Amino acid sequence: MSAGGTPGAGPFAALPAPPYYVVVFSSVRGGPAGGYDEAAARMVELARAQPGFLGVESARGADGFGITTSYWASEGAIQAWRRQAEHARVRERGRDWYRHFEVRVARVERTYGHPRPEPAALAGSDPPGP
Amino acid sequence: MSAGGTPGAGPFAALPAPPYYVVVFSSVRGGPAGGYDEAAARMVELARAQPGFLGVESARGADGFGITTSYWASEGAIQAWRRQAEHARVRERGRDWYRHFEVRVARVERTYGHPRPEPAALAGSDPPGP
Repeated sequence: MSAGGTPGAGPFAALPAPPYYVVVFSSVRGGPAGGYDEAAARMVELARAQPGFLGVESARGADGFGITTSYWASEGAIQAWRRQAEHARVRERGRDWYRHFEVRVARVERTYGHPRPEPAALAGSDPPGP
Repeated sequence: MSAGGTPGAGPFAALPAPPYYVVVFSSVRGGPAGGYDEAAARMVELARAQPGFLGVESARGADGFGITTSYWASEGAIQAWRRQAEHARVRERGRDWYRHFEVRVARVERTYGHPRPEPAALAGSDPPGP
């Protein structure tokens, strides 16, 4: 699951101006991986259907450690997502997929970035790194 | 840079009870990588020396998209880190290392996790996933 907030839109979530909320999910995979990829994709699909869902970003390194950040309009939206029935069932299975995870729920207060759109003329001389 | 909050302690930051702050740094690498690894390691070393630094977690996938979360005791600690002179110089160079980055500063309000320490007897039959 390395998809961004919108299918085909790249890895970055397109977010409104703050304040909003972020759920930071840090995890180490472990145990049998059966069904993991399907479940992760289904979770993103379910999250997108939830009121107040704003976007998601995810990265996992070759060492098995990953961070997924999901963004929500309010604490109430996060609580409703936790209560969503299918999500709750998959979370239970998640205890088999993750050796260890930590969740931090936080209120985003300010943001900044460096978009630097890529000029086509430079694309050949400035290839993406690994 | 996939090291955790404490050298040798694994990828998870050991954090106090909330509230505290998180800086979520999402990025896509790009351009020449010269000096990147050394600079990233130096940044973590400098951050650890900053008052109010609590820990850091980081993951980057094979697609070049990564998320680093650094944790701080207060907004003031984050502001002081931004003003740290060597950090500011390396940040300027960072515009060459990253094709795109987004930063979200948020106040952590609640946390939970699933530690499940690994019994030695099960280690052989329950190997870590990829």
